[in-house]
Amino acid sequence: MLESTLTHLVCTGCQRTVSADEWHGTCPDCGHVLAARYDLERARWTFRPAELAARPWTLWRYAELLPVCDPRFRLTLGEGGTPLLPAPRLARTLGLRRLWLKDESRNPTGSFKSRGLAVAVSRAIELGARAVALPSAGNAAAALSAYAARAGIPAFVFLPMDTPPSIVRECLAYGARVYRVRGLITDCGRLVRRFAAERGWADLSTLREPYRAEGKKTMGFELVEQLGWRLPDVIVYPTGGGTGIVGMEKAFAELAALGLLAGSRARFVIVQPEGCAPLVRAFHEGATRARPWEGAQTIAPGLRVPATIGDELVLAAVRASGGTAVAVSDQELLEGTRILATDEGVLVSPEAGATVAAVRQLRANGWLAPDAEVVLFLTGSGLKHPELLPADEQCPVLEPDADSLPDPPVG
Amino acid sequence: MLESTLTHLVCTGCQRTVSADEWHGTCPDCGHVLAARYDLERARWTFRPAELAARPWTLWRYAELLPVCDPRFRLTLGEGGTPLLPAPRLARTLGLRRLWLKDESRNPTGSFKSRGLAVAVSRAIELGARAVALPSAGNAAAALSAYAARAGIPAFVFLPMDTPPSIVRECLAYGARVYRVRGLITDCGRLVRRFAAERGWADLSTLREPYRAEGKKTMGFELVEQLGWRLPDVIVYPTGGGTGIVGMEKAFAELAALGLLAGSRARFVIVQPEGCAPLVRAFHEGATRARPWEGAQTIAPGLRVPATIGDELVLAAVRASGGTAVAVSDQELLEGTRILATDEGVLVSPEAGATVAAVRQLRANGWLAPDAEVVLFLTGSGLKHPELLPADEQCPVLEPDADSLPDPPVG
Repeated sequence: MLESTLTHLVCTGCQRTVSADEWHGTCPDCGHVLAARYDLERARWTFRPAELAARPWTLWRYAELLPVCDPRFRLTLGEGGTPLLPAPRLARTLGLRRLWLKDESRNPTGSFKSRGLAVAVSRAIELGARAVALPSAGNAAAALSAYAARAGIPAFVFLPMDTPPSIVRECLAYGARVYRVRGLITDCGRLVRRFAAERGWADLSTLREPYRAEGKKTMGFELVEQLGWRLPDVIVYPTGGGTGIVGMEKAFAELAALGLLAGSRARFVIVQPEGCAPLVRAFHEGATRARPWEGAQTIAPGLRVPATIGDELVLAAVRASGGTAVAVSDQELLEGTRILATDEGVLVSPEAGATVAAVRQLRANGWLAPDAEVVLFLTGSGLKHPELLPADEQCPVLEPDADSLPDPPVG
Repeated sequence: MLESTLTHLVCTGCQRTVSADEWHGTCPDCGHVLAARYDLERARWTFRPAELAARPWTLWRYAELLPVCDPRFRLTLGEGGTPLLPAPRLARTLGLRRLWLKDESRNPTGSFKSRGLAVAVSRAIELGARAVALPSAGNAAAALSAYAARAGIPAFVFLPMDTPPSIVRECLAYGARVYRVRGLITDCGRLVRRFAAERGWADLSTLREPYRAEGKKTMGFELVEQLGWRLPDVIVYPTGGGTGIVGMEKAFAELAALGLLAGSRARFVIVQPEGCAPLVRAFHEGATRARPWEGAQTIAPGLRVPATIGDELVLAAVRASGGTAVAVSDQELLEGTRILATDEGVLVSPEAGATVAAVRQLRANGWLAPDAEVVLFLTGSGLKHPELLPADEQCPVLEPDADSLPDPPVG
């Protein structure tokens, strides 16, 4: 069995060392985000391309650099191992030569959120948790619900009223305890913190514990492995809370420390909707932190995140990478979703469609050169948003003995 | 690049040899199902466990025994490579010691149909097709639509009026030409045959061309590879048209011919709903063919198949394997779906839930011994059936400053 080389946690704010052997949320001293640290000298012995190539395609293939020590606690629904698809037709449309789609919709529960929660729920239970909870715009709640069901412990999820009904019902199907909140995801988060403390739940809010980012990190490991142990030029990432970017930056740093990645960095591009773009605003203002966004509004629930504890980390990661930040309209992101389905056969969530809209902008303003190798992270499945699919009234109806065929409008 | 060793087609009725170099539907002589044949002596050189272990986890890893010759025609959305999940909690509930879930919902477009259509659309285009068509209860149409979009050719799909609206809309999202038919899937099939002949579409109806079964076959290859090159005792398979069983039987025979599978067979269990069980009836009547089912009715659209061209092949495969056939009620299959979500964290389609109901029956009547190693094929995703998820009205609503927590009902 593959061994974790987890050693301790470090505060990303005050740099204090914290034990990894008991449950910690944020830094007990300063309240900043905690990060896991590994014995890379030990990991180096087995975390090698040839050895990895023969392991099963789930994120647990990277177990040396994941925080779950006893393999019996590693919950799996087959998370990670998502395809990296070439997109030649869309590349031509966008004026790029090399474009890849990292199709995260293919995770269990249909979104990238499964990665973080597979790892965090496993680790929480390994450290003694008997119940788990989080606030969510939808996808994280579905993933938490599924892994809690898999583990046989209760999940408590807190969702804003405008969460898509199909995702609320998905959580219920897994047997989760679902609360709907008249407010934003930040309000849900406050309620979770309060009741988690009172009832002894493990609070798995984004970046308020160190392990979800470890699961997300595997998007970075996989991307590098799938490209043949190298980075692309640009990674376009729809950004709500921002753990994905924080996790991938950590992945690339760990791979570099292991001697598995040489040379250049990948530039991160944050994409947010115009109706809720706190990180984009902060990036272009040159700020190190992001002010909360007032009156957040967008059709993409996963991007309706007006404030995040990870703002400083995300902004620093994007700047260090030479990246940028782009806001797109709801109309543009829906058009991106449409074209991914019709031109490449990939049906994704509105968040994912935002990446196409961002590339259009960055090609138009020259930030992206035509020969840049670009990876779009398609974070969720379009099947989770039946309300956004084309209406079926447009389909012609035939009798069984029809002898002519009307031309239907194209979807 | 991996080479296909396809040599020719053989009629499963009259045994006539047919060229594989041009498009054939059914046997030009007798109208029976055609099957692809390979040069197994040549395949043997590279189709070996150690070599396979290092290949990417899509069904194209088995390219030697797939019918697409020029690798440039191999369409991929990352199909196949689905997880084989242990299900210890459900095993205990069902009184089994070893139970596995083959989670086919994790394919592109959320169902096992992607396997057959990735291969069939690729091969049709390699042989010159400019448009593709099929009748479908839903999932096959969605898969066809996605692969046609990926290839950039039009797809024409014919769906019964009672197809779930979310699947109709999914097809439209991919840009397919969607016709709804006042009738059953058999009526849709007749329309496809008629208009395909008239307009020159490749007709990809189940078993009316030889290549979808080749894609489905990879379920068998994968299962054997995931179990360490051996078979389970029993395979429980929700059966509509039956290509899955026909394909897996062929896979096991090819692996045996290659010396990769020794000894015992896996017993196939057909599962159909009580409201449409033509193969179950024929099996227990001892018939070699199945009479069409009158008044087909079930909540599981993929199993609403009153007649299939593959009846003879499916019945023969199940009998040769020492298997059996089981009918379950809609209520039982929905309960199976529920328990898969709450006890194992896997949200599947009603068709897939039928497998759990079948195991209950076969344990109760003693056909299944407690020490049998059983694999359930979970053919589709529950996300494609939002109408069957629990209602969200049951969730308590909280104000942002709530200071007490009502106990919600469990989903």
